[in-house]
Amino acid sequence: MVIVHVHVHVKPECVEAFREASIENARQSNGEPGIARFDVIQQVGDPTRFVLVEVYRSQEATAAHKDTAHYQKWRDTVAEMMAEPRSSVKYEPVLTRDA
Amino acid sequence: MVIVHVHVHVKPECVEAFREASIENARQSNGEPGIARFDVIQQVGDPTRFVLVEVYRSQEATAAHKDTAHYQKWRDTVAEMMAEPRSSVKYEPVLTRDA
Repeated sequence: MVIVHVHVHVKPECVEAFREASIENARQSNGEPGIARFDVIQQVGDPTRFVLVEVYRSQEATAAHKDTAHYQKWRDTVAEMMAEPRSSVKYEPVLTRDA
Repeated sequence: MVIVHVHVHVKPECVEAFREASIENARQSNGEPGIARFDVIQQVGDPTRFVLVEVYRSQEATAAHKDTAHYQKWRDTVAEMMAEPRSSVKYEPVLTRDA
């Protein structure tokens, strides 16, 4: 299992558009066989900050995700919305309810 | 729903003890009625860094958690293991599979 937290900071005027694009991407990502969980969460107190919580069943699944049309559409759609480059951190589970 | 990510950086010699204490706390926290998810994850490439991924069903549940014996035991047990003070960030869901 590979867990990736993608930290995103968007321009204030892009918050709604980012939410919409990310909901669409997350819905489709949740349908990928290699993805156990693909959540989108928004920071309390600063709505311009989001985290994508991505839980992959394998390393290969992370690459497969980047090959999907929905990821590529999301990536291109949100590119201009960033207030700063997004960053991602990889984790491995110590204890998780994701199977 | 209230999502809290607690970022923890422990001293290198405390990694295993922190894992053990946190697994015990997470197991018991997952049994709280107000908690939908309580995961512990460890950063790839830097095993001294952890995130506790806490998903509460309500604001009240966050307070109830702090009243439990297992939380208080964990808090006291890990206090001396920190390399720096831990920090927490609150989020609300945009799209999540937690119910």
